[in-house]
Amino acid sequence: MTRLLLATRNEKKLVELRRILEAADVTGVEVIGLADVPPFPEAPETGATFEDNALAKAVDAARATGLPAVADDSGIAVDALNGMPGVLSARWSGKHGDDQANLDLLLGQLADVPDERRGGAFVAAAALVLPDGSETVVRGEWRGTIIREARGRNGFGYDPIFVPEGETRTSAELSAEEKDADSHRGRALRKLLPELRKLAG
Amino acid sequence: MTRLLLATRNEKKLVELRRILEAADVTGVEVIGLADVPPFPEAPETGATFEDNALAKAVDAARATGLPAVADDSGIAVDALNGMPGVLSARWSGKHGDDQANLDLLLGQLADVPDERRGGAFVAAAALVLPDGSETVVRGEWRGTIIREARGRNGFGYDPIFVPEGETRTSAELSAEEKDADSHRGRALRKLLPELRKLAG
Repeated sequence: MTRLLLATRNEKKLVELRRILEAADVTGVEVIGLADVPPFPEAPETGATFEDNALAKAVDAARATGLPAVADDSGIAVDALNGMPGVLSARWSGKHGDDQANLDLLLGQLADVPDERRGGAFVAAAALVLPDGSETVVRGEWRGTIIREARGRNGFGYDPIFVPEGETRTSAELSAEEKDADSHRGRALRKLLPELRKLAG
Repeated sequence: MTRLLLATRNEKKLVELRRILEAADVTGVEVIGLADVPPFPEAPETGATFEDNALAKAVDAARATGLPAVADDSGIAVDALNGMPGVLSARWSGKHGDDQANLDLLLGQLADVPDERRGGAFVAAAALVLPDGSETVVRGEWRGTIIREARGRNGFGYDPIFVPEGETRTSAELSAEEKDADSHRGRALRKLLPELRKLAG
Protein backbone atom coordinates (compact mmCIF):
# COMPACT_ATOMS: atom_id res chain seq x y z
CA MET A 1 0.00 0.00 0.00
CA THR A 2 1.27 3.48 -0.93
CA ARG A 3 0.30 6.03 1.67
CA LEU A 4 -1.08 9.31 0.28
CA LEU A 5 -1.38 12.28 2.62
CA LEU A 6 -4.38 14.52 2.08
CA ALA A 7 -3.40 17.76 3.83
CA THR A 8 -6.59 18.24 5.80
CA ARG A 9 -8.11 17.57 9.22
CA ASN A 10 -11.57 17.29 7.68
CA GLU A 11 -12.73 13.68 7.86
CA LYS A 12 -15.35 14.30 5.15
CA LYS A 13 -12.62 15.25 2.70
CA LEU A 14 -10.75 12.03 3.46
CA VAL A 15 -13.88 9.98 2.84
CA GLU A 16 -14.55 11.88 -0.39
CA LEU A 17 -11.07 11.18 -1.81
CA ARG A 18 -11.27 7.52 -0.80
CA ARG A 19 -14.66 7.26 -2.55
CA ILE A 20 -13.31 8.91 -5.72
CA LEU A 21 -10.32 6.54 -5.81
CA GLU A 22 -12.57 3.54 -5.25
CA ALA A 23 -15.00 4.63 -7.97
CA ALA A 24 -12.06 4.86 -10.37
CA ASP A 25 -10.73 1.41 -9.38
CA VAL A 26 -7.53 2.91 -8.03
CA THR A 27 -6.48 0.35 -5.42
CA GLY A 28 -3.29 0.14 -3.43
CA VAL A 29 -3.44 3.75 -2.20
CA GLU A 30 -4.17 4.43 1.46
CA VAL A 31 -5.47 7.97 2.06
CA ILE A 32 -4.41 9.43 5.40
CA GLY A 33 -4.91 12.91 6.88
CA LEU A 34 -2.95 15.40 8.95
CA ALA A 35 -4.18 13.72 12.12
CA ASP A 36 -2.26 10.59 11.08
CA VAL A 37 1.17 12.20 10.79
CA PRO A 38 3.39 14.10 13.24
CA PRO A 39 2.48 17.80 13.40
CA PHE A 40 4.47 20.24 11.25
CA PRO A 41 4.23 24.02 10.86
CA GLU A 42 1.54 24.94 8.33
CA ALA A 43 1.91 28.13 6.32
CA PRO A 44 -1.05 30.55 6.28
CA GLU A 45 -3.20 30.60 3.13
CA THR A 46 -2.30 34.01 1.77
CA GLY A 47 -1.79 33.20 -1.91
CA ALA A 48 -3.35 35.26 -4.67
CA THR A 49 -4.97 32.20 -6.31
CA PHE A 50 -6.57 28.91 -5.29
CA GLU A 51 -3.73 27.18 -7.13
CA ASP A 52 -1.07 29.03 -5.11
CA ASN A 53 -2.71 28.01 -1.84
CA ALA A 54 -3.29 24.38 -2.79
CA LEU A 55 0.26 23.97 -4.04
CA ALA A 56 1.81 25.65 -1.00
CA LYS A 57 -0.11 23.32 1.33
CA ALA A 58 0.83 20.20 -0.66
CA VAL A 59 4.50 21.21 -0.87
CA ASP A 60 4.64 21.79 2.91
CA ALA A 61 2.97 18.45 3.59
CA ALA A 62 5.19 16.47 1.21
CA ARG A 63 8.38 18.06 2.52
CA ALA A 64 7.45 17.56 6.16
CA THR A 65 6.45 13.92 5.81
CA GLY A 66 8.27 12.53 2.78
CA LEU A 67 4.89 11.25 1.58
CA PRO A 68 3.07 12.04 -1.66
CA ALA A 69 0.65 14.77 -0.64
CA VAL A 70 -2.59 16.24 -1.99
CA ALA A 71 -4.03 19.58 -0.87
CA ASP A 72 -6.91 21.70 -2.06
CA ASP A 73 -8.23 25.21 -1.78
CA SER A 74 -11.66 26.30 -2.83
CA GLY A 75 -14.19 29.11 -2.72
CA ILE A 76 -16.88 30.92 -4.60
CA ALA A 77 -16.19 33.26 -7.52
CA VAL A 78 -19.05 35.68 -8.22
CA ASP A 79 -19.17 37.31 -11.66
CA ALA A 80 -20.63 40.60 -10.39
CA LEU A 81 -17.74 40.79 -7.90
CA ASN A 82 -15.09 40.16 -10.57
CA GLY A 83 -14.50 36.64 -9.26
CA MET A 84 -14.41 37.51 -5.55
CA PRO A 85 -14.82 36.37 -2.71
CA GLY A 86 -12.39 33.89 -4.37
CA VAL A 87 -9.44 33.04 -2.15
CA LEU A 88 -11.00 35.21 0.56
CA SER A 89 -14.23 33.15 0.66
CA ALA A 90 -13.65 31.85 4.19
CA ARG A 91 -12.91 35.31 5.58
CA TRP A 92 -15.12 37.48 3.37
CA SER A 93 -16.84 39.13 6.35
CA GLY A 94 -13.45 40.05 7.80
CA LYS A 95 -13.15 37.22 10.28
CA HIS A 96 -12.27 33.66 9.39
CA GLY A 97 -14.76 30.83 9.21
CA ASP A 98 -18.05 32.54 10.06
CA ASP A 99 -20.18 30.93 7.32
CA GLN A 100 -23.34 32.82 8.23
CA ALA A 101 -21.65 36.22 8.29
CA ASN A 102 -19.90 35.53 4.99
CA LEU A 103 -23.13 34.43 3.32
CA ASP A 104 -25.16 37.35 4.72
CA LEU A 105 -22.55 39.82 3.53
CA LEU A 106 -22.52 38.38 0.01
CA LEU A 107 -26.31 38.58 -0.18
CA GLY A 108 -26.22 42.20 0.99
CA GLN A 109 -23.56 43.16 -1.54
CA LEU A 110 -25.59 41.58 -4.34
CA ALA A 111 -28.97 42.96 -3.21
CA ASP A 112 -29.18 45.46 -6.11
CA VAL A 113 -27.55 43.15 -8.68
CA PRO A 114 -30.22 42.03 -11.18
CA ASP A 115 -30.94 38.38 -11.87
CA GLU A 116 -29.15 38.33 -15.21
CA ARG A 117 -25.86 39.30 -13.55
CA ARG A 118 -25.94 36.85 -10.61
CA GLY A 119 -23.80 34.09 -12.18
CA GLY A 120 -20.83 32.58 -10.42
CA ALA A 121 -18.93 29.39 -9.78
CA PHE A 122 -17.60 27.27 -6.99
CA VAL A 123 -13.92 26.81 -7.79
CA ALA A 124 -11.43 24.31 -6.36
CA ALA A 125 -7.75 23.85 -7.03
CA ALA A 126 -6.08 20.58 -6.07
CA ALA A 127 -2.34 19.98 -5.97
CA LEU A 128 -0.37 16.75 -5.83
CA VAL A 129 3.29 16.86 -4.78
CA LEU A 130 5.41 13.72 -4.94
CA PRO A 131 8.46 12.94 -2.78
CA ASP A 132 10.71 13.66 -5.80
CA GLY A 133 9.29 17.21 -5.80
CA SER A 134 7.20 16.89 -8.96
CA GLU A 135 4.00 18.95 -8.86
CA THR A 136 0.60 18.69 -10.49
CA VAL A 137 -2.02 21.42 -10.00
CA VAL A 138 -5.55 21.19 -11.40
CA ARG A 139 -8.76 23.21 -11.18
CA GLY A 140 -12.43 22.25 -11.04
CA GLU A 141 -15.33 24.64 -11.56
CA TRP A 142 -19.06 24.31 -10.89
CA ARG A 143 -21.07 27.08 -12.56
CA GLY A 144 -24.37 28.34 -11.16
CA THR A 145 -26.38 31.29 -9.89
CA ILE A 146 -26.32 33.21 -6.60
CA ILE A 147 -29.92 33.39 -5.37
CA ARG A 148 -31.40 35.97 -3.00
CA GLU A 149 -32.32 33.85 0.05
CA ALA A 150 -30.58 30.89 1.65
CA ARG A 151 -32.20 27.45 1.22
CA GLY A 152 -31.15 24.01 2.46
CA ARG A 153 -29.22 22.54 5.35
CA ASN A 154 -26.61 20.28 3.76
CA GLY A 155 -23.09 21.30 2.88
CA PHE A 156 -21.48 24.41 4.34
CA GLY A 157 -20.21 27.84 3.37
CA TYR A 158 -22.08 29.37 0.46
CA ASP A 159 -23.98 26.18 -0.46
CA PRO A 160 -27.39 27.57 0.65
CA ILE A 161 -27.29 30.44 -1.89
CA PHE A 162 -25.80 28.60 -4.89
CA VAL A 163 -28.02 26.89 -7.49
CA PRO A 164 -25.88 24.85 -9.90
CA GLU A 165 -26.55 25.06 -13.64
CA GLY A 166 -29.26 22.59 -14.62
CA GLU A 167 -30.61 22.46 -11.05
CA THR A 168 -33.49 24.15 -9.25
CA ARG A 169 -32.17 23.16 -5.81
CA THR A 170 -29.31 24.88 -4.00
CA SER A 171 -26.19 22.85 -3.38
CA ALA A 172 -27.29 22.78 0.28
CA GLU A 173 -30.42 20.92 -0.88
CA LEU A 174 -28.44 18.23 -2.74
CA SER A 175 -27.40 15.02 -1.05
CA ALA A 176 -23.69 14.53 -0.38
CA GLU A 177 -23.59 11.99 -3.20
CA GLU A 178 -25.27 14.33 -5.68
CA LYS A 179 -22.93 17.12 -4.71
CA ASP A 180 -19.80 14.96 -5.01
CA ALA A 181 -20.77 13.85 -8.50
CA ASP A 182 -20.76 17.38 -9.89
CA SER A 183 -18.95 19.61 -7.47
CA HIS A 184 -15.86 21.70 -8.10
CA ARG A 185 -13.88 19.62 -5.56
CA GLY A 186 -14.96 16.34 -7.13
CA ARG A 187 -14.04 17.64 -10.58
CA ALA A 188 -10.63 18.82 -9.46
CA LEU A 189 -9.79 15.63 -7.56
CA ARG A 190 -10.85 13.45 -10.48
CA LYS A 191 -8.43 15.37 -12.69
CA LEU A 192 -5.65 14.06 -10.44
CA LEU A 193 -6.66 10.43 -11.05
CA PRO A 194 -4.10 9.73 -13.82
CA GLU A 195 -1.28 10.75 -11.47
CA LEU A 196 -2.77 8.98 -8.48
CA ARG A 197 -3.12 5.80 -10.55
CA LYS A 198 0.65 5.84 -11.15
CA LEU A 199 1.20 6.02 -7.39
CA ALA A 200 -0.82 2.88 -6.94
CA GLY A 201 1.04 1.02 -9.64
CA MET B 1 -25.19 82.13 -18.95
CA THR B 2 -25.65 78.48 -19.92
CA ARG B 3 -27.01 76.49 -17.03
CA LEU B 4 -25.27 73.13 -16.44
CA LEU B 5 -26.94 70.63 -14.13
CA LEU B 6 -24.60 68.54 -11.97
CA ALA B 7 -26.77 65.58 -10.92
CA THR B 8 -25.98 65.68 -7.22
CA ARG B 9 -27.31 67.02 -3.94
CA ASN B 10 -23.76 67.30 -2.57
CA GLU B 11 -22.84 70.97 -2.24
CA LYS B 12 -19.10 70.08 -2.12
CA LYS B 13 -19.34 68.54 -5.57
CA LEU B 14 -20.97 71.69 -6.93
CA VAL B 15 -18.20 73.83 -5.47
CA GLU B 16 -15.58 71.47 -6.87
CA LEU B 17 -16.92 71.66 -10.43
CA ARG B 18 -17.25 75.46 -10.21
CA ARG B 19 -13.62 75.67 -9.06
CA ILE B 20 -12.43 73.41 -11.89
CA LEU B 21 -14.29 75.50 -14.47
CA GLU B 22 -12.91 78.71 -12.99
CA ALA B 23 -9.35 77.36 -12.94
CA ALA B 24 -9.72 76.46 -16.62
CA ASP B 25 -11.10 79.93 -17.47
CA VAL B 26 -14.41 78.50 -18.59
CA THR B 27 -16.81 81.35 -18.00
CA GLY B 28 -20.44 81.67 -18.95
CA VAL B 29 -21.49 78.35 -17.38
CA GLU B 30 -23.63 78.35 -14.25
CA VAL B 31 -23.38 75.07 -12.33
CA ILE B 32 -26.61 74.09 -10.56
CA GLY B 33 -27.55 70.97 -8.60
CA LEU B 34 -30.57 68.72 -8.17
CA ALA B 35 -31.83 71.01 -5.40
CA ASP B 36 -32.22 73.77 -8.01
CA VAL B 37 -34.53 71.90 -10.39
CA PRO B 38 -37.96 70.28 -9.95
CA PRO B 39 -37.70 66.74 -8.57
CA PHE B 40 -37.73 63.84 -11.05
CA PRO B 41 -37.55 60.07 -10.52
CA GLU B 42 -33.93 58.94 -10.15
CA ALA B 43 -32.97 55.43 -11.25
CA PRO B 44 -31.05 53.27 -8.76
CA GLU B 45 -27.31 52.84 -9.35
CA THR B 46 -27.20 49.21 -10.34
CA GLY B 47 -24.87 49.33 -13.35
CA ALA B 48 -21.95 46.97 -13.76
CA THR B 49 -19.45 49.81 -14.24
CA PHE B 50 -18.83 53.33 -12.99
CA GLU B 51 -19.37 54.52 -16.57
CA ASP B 52 -22.81 52.83 -16.75
CA ASN B 53 -23.92 54.51 -13.54
CA ALA B 54 -22.58 57.97 -14.40
CA LEU B 55 -24.14 57.87 -17.84
CA ALA B 56 -27.52 56.64 -16.58
CA LYS B 57 -27.66 59.48 -14.05
CA ALA B 58 -26.67 62.12 -16.60
CA VAL B 59 -29.17 60.81 -19.18
CA ASP B 60 -32.00 60.88 -16.61
CA ALA B 61 -31.09 64.40 -15.51
CA ALA B 62 -30.81 65.78 -19.06
CA ARG B 63 -34.08 64.19 -20.17
CA ALA B 64 -35.99 65.36 -17.10
CA THR B 65 -34.79 68.97 -17.24
CA GLY B 66 -33.81 69.69 -20.82
CA LEU B 67 -30.50 71.01 -19.47
CA PRO B 68 -26.98 69.80 -20.26
CA ALA B 69 -26.20 67.46 -17.36
CA VAL B 70 -23.08 66.05 -15.74
CA ALA B 71 -23.10 63.06 -13.38
CA ASP B 72 -20.38 61.01 -11.77
CA ASP B 73 -19.91 57.68 -10.04
CA SER B 74 -16.85 56.69 -8.13
CA GLY B 75 -15.36 54.14 -5.77
CA ILE B 76 -12.26 52.23 -4.81
CA ALA B 77 -10.84 49.39 -6.90
CA VAL B 78 -8.52 47.10 -4.92
CA ASP B 79 -6.10 44.93 -6.90
CA ALA B 80 -6.23 42.02 -4.42
CA LEU B 81 -10.04 42.04 -4.76
CA ASN B 82 -9.93 42.03 -8.58
CA GLY B 83 -11.02 45.65 -8.70
CA MET B 84 -13.79 45.42 -6.10
CA PRO B 85 -15.44 47.07 -4.07
CA GLY B 86 -15.78 49.01 -7.36
CA VAL B 87 -19.37 50.02 -8.10
CA LEU B 88 -20.35 48.49 -4.75
CA SER B 89 -18.02 50.77 -2.75
CA ALA B 90 -20.85 52.61 -0.99
CA ARG B 91 -22.61 49.39 0.03
CA TRP B 92 -19.65 47.04 0.47
CA SER B 93 -20.67 46.06 4.01
CA GLY B 94 -24.14 45.14 2.75
CA LYS B 95 -25.94 48.33 3.73
CA HIS B 96 -25.66 51.61 1.90
CA GLY B 97 -23.59 54.54 3.05
CA ASP B 98 -22.01 53.24 6.27
CA ASP B 99 -18.46 54.51 5.64
CA GLN B 100 -17.04 53.05 8.84
CA ALA B 101 -18.50 49.59 8.26
CA ASN B 102 -17.32 49.58 4.64
CA LEU B 103 -13.81 50.61 5.62
CA ASP B 104 -13.59 48.13 8.52
CA LEU B 105 -14.74 45.31 6.28
CA LEU B 106 -12.16 46.11 3.62
CA LEU B 107 -9.38 46.16 6.22
CA GLY B 108 -10.55 42.79 7.57
CA GLN B 109 -10.66 41.23 4.13
CA LEU B 110 -7.13 42.46 3.39
CA ALA B 111 -5.69 41.54 6.81
CA ASP B 112 -3.67 38.61 5.39
CA VAL B 113 -2.81 40.30 2.11
CA PRO B 114 0.90 41.17 2.12
CA ASP B 115 2.17 44.72 1.53
CA GLU B 116 3.31 44.05 -2.03
CA ARG B 117 -0.24 43.14 -3.07
CA ARG B 118 -2.09 46.07 -1.46
CA GLY B 119 -2.26 48.36 -4.51
CA GLY B 120 -5.48 49.91 -5.68
CA ALA B 121 -7.04 53.02 -7.15
CA PHE B 122 -9.80 55.48 -6.57
CA VAL B 123 -11.78 55.53 -9.80
CA ALA B 124 -14.35 58.03 -11.04
CA ALA B 125 -16.41 58.11 -14.19
CA ALA B 126 -18.02 61.35 -15.29
CA ALA B 127 -20.66 61.68 -17.98
CA LEU B 128 -21.93 64.72 -19.85
CA VAL B 129 -25.23 64.52 -21.71
CA LEU B 130 -26.39 67.43 -23.88
CA PRO B 131 -29.99 68.34 -24.69
CA ASP B 132 -29.47 66.95 -28.22
CA GLY B 133 -28.73 63.55 -26.63
CA SER B 134 -25.00 63.50 -27.35
CA GLU B 135 -22.98 61.72 -24.64
CA THR B 136 -19.41 61.96 -23.38
CA VAL B 137 -18.12 59.55 -20.72
CA VAL B 138 -14.64 59.82 -19.20
CA ARG B 139 -12.69 58.11 -16.42
CA GLY B 140 -10.16 59.34 -13.88
CA GLU B 141 -7.96 57.12 -11.72
CA TRP B 142 -5.80 57.84 -8.68
CA ARG B 143 -3.40 54.98 -7.89
CA GLY B 144 -2.19 54.21 -4.40
CA THR B 145 -1.90 51.69 -1.59
CA ILE B 146 -4.41 50.37 0.94
CA ILE B 147 -2.80 50.66 4.36
CA ARG B 148 -3.66 48.63 7.48
CA GLU B 149 -5.03 51.30 9.84
CA ALA B 150 -7.16 54.35 9.19
CA ARG B 151 -5.47 57.78 9.45
CA GLY B 152 -6.83 61.29 8.97
CA ARG B 153 -10.14 63.09 9.30
CA ASN B 154 -10.67 64.84 5.97
CA GLY B 155 -12.59 63.44 3.04
CA PHE B 156 -14.95 60.49 3.44
CA GLY B 157 -15.40 56.86 2.45
CA TYR B 158 -12.13 55.01 2.06
CA ASP B 159 -9.93 58.14 2.24
CA PRO B 160 -8.43 57.22 5.66
CA ILE B 161 -6.89 53.95 4.35
CA PHE B 162 -5.67 55.14 0.93
CA VAL B 163 -2.16 56.53 0.45
CA PRO B 164 -1.79 57.97 -3.07
CA GLU B 165 1.33 57.17 -5.09
CA GLY B 166 4.10 59.63 -4.26
CA GLU B 167 2.51 60.48 -0.88
CA THR B 168 3.12 59.33 2.68
CA ARG B 169 -0.17 60.78 3.92
CA THR B 170 -3.58 59.20 3.39
CA SER B 171 -6.07 61.05 1.25
CA ALA B 172 -7.89 61.84 4.51
CA GLU B 173 -4.76 63.71 5.64
CA LEU B 174 -4.62 65.87 2.51
CA SER B 175 -6.33 69.26 2.37
CA ALA B 176 -9.36 69.55 0.10
CA GLU B 177 -7.23 71.59 -2.33
CA GLU B 178 -4.46 68.97 -2.42
CA LYS B 179 -6.98 66.22 -2.95
CA ASP B 180 -8.79 68.06 -5.75
CA ALA B 181 -5.57 68.65 -7.63
CA ASP B 182 -4.82 64.94 -7.98
CA SER B 183 -7.98 63.02 -7.24
CA HIS B 184 -9.84 60.64 -9.52
CA ARG B 185 -12.87 62.95 -9.54
CA GLY B 186 -10.79 66.00 -10.41
CA ARG B 187 -9.05 64.06 -13.19
CA ALA B 188 -12.34 62.84 -14.65
CA LEU B 189 -14.04 66.24 -14.50
CA ARG B 190 -11.06 67.97 -16.12
CA LYS B 191 -11.31 65.51 -19.02
CA LEU B 192 -14.77 66.99 -19.69
CA LEU B 193 -13.37 70.54 -20.00
CA PRO B 194 -13.14 70.56 -23.82
CA GLU B 195 -16.85 69.72 -24.06
CA LEU B 196 -17.81 72.11 -21.26
CA ARG B 197 -15.88 74.90 -22.96
CA LYS B 198 -18.08 74.48 -26.05
CA LEU B 199 -21.17 74.89 -23.86
CA ALA B 200 -19.87 78.23 -22.62
CA GLY B 201 -19.10 79.46 -26.09
